Amino acid sequence: MSFRDEALEANASYASAFVATERAAPPSRRVAVLACMDARLQPEGALGLALGEAHVIRNAGGRVTDDAVRSLVLSSAVLGTREAAVVHHTDCGLLGATNEGLRAHVAEATGTETDEIDEIDFLPFDDAERALLDDVRAITRDPRLAFDTVSGFLYDVRTGRLREVAPG
Amino acid sequence: MSFRDEALEANASYASAFVATERAAPPSRRVAVLACMDARLQPEGALGLALGEAHVIRNAGGRVTDDAVRSLVLSSAVLGTREAAVVHHTDCGLLGATNEGLRAHVAEATGTETDEIDEIDFLPFDDAERALLDDVRAITRDPRLAFDTVSGFLYDVRTGRLREVAPG
Repeated sequence: MSFRDEALEANASYASAFVATERAAPPSRRVAVLACMDARLQPEGALGLALGEAHVIRNAGGRVTDDAVRSLVLSSAVLGTREAAVVHHTDCGLLGATNEGLRAHVAEATGTETDEIDEIDFLPFDDAERALLDDVRAITRDPRLAFDTVSGFLYDVRTGRLREVAPG
Repeated sequence: MSFRDEALEANASYASAFVATERAAPPSRRVAVLACMDARLQPEGALGLALGEAHVIRNAGGRVTDDAVRSLVLSSAVLGTREAAVVHHTDCGLLGATNEGLRAHVAEATGTETDEIDEIDFLPFDDAERALLDDVRAITRDPRLAFDTVSGFLYDVRTGRLREVAPG
């Protein structure tokens, strides 16, 4: 069975147990989370967020990219979130990687001309704590974002435990 | 209590129930999901994804941006995912919005010079099904991405139900 079939089957049972209520778009706890896409991290579970409570933005690394800023601006200025949290994690594939190494890997895996891959900055980093602090700072300093507090957490994929690196 | 305090408290109980096992970085079901950041959507629950099974990339609208492509390239070429699913939803704030309207809203909310906001394309759309099909097609056609199948689902925030719009 393909993932598509399995997802529709799983969703039928999810929807049958779903409590249908009118939920407004603005997150009820006024929180926006920026987290890594890693499969071993589920931000809602790890941070205790229920349905309707927070925006969750995720990309490779949980980095502050132009697209993350686009999403955070909509979250804060349009939908009224007031606190932000950045969640990176242990054993991240971007830690210790380089653009050159990743580009070579991608070119080999896809057989694609490297020109198209050279455009991509994969945003690797060498120091997990520094990358997290950089991302917290990027949100704090962006004049288009007006969060009251921005916290930074490092999630341990082996234990499920958060460690606060940048106090909000 | 601030969100930061509540998150650390919630995480202490999450971690105490966490089954510590060695999970490898590549998602075990070889799946990548691109979904909207909306608080009323929890992709893992709605699609039946357990910890470790899939990458989850999220932004405002679940749109295929440069950053989503960066993340999807790492997911597929480096971490071996083979199926992708795009998940948009009903009652999306970007549906029927315009860049002009959103920029005016943001400028007023932040008191920021509009020049800095004019740089942002918020990626609003007028037709939910067409936007979803566009995003599925963008992933399918990108030579840097080599998914075997790409499905597109519209999630109903009122009922929890997925409707397939683009069959994988």
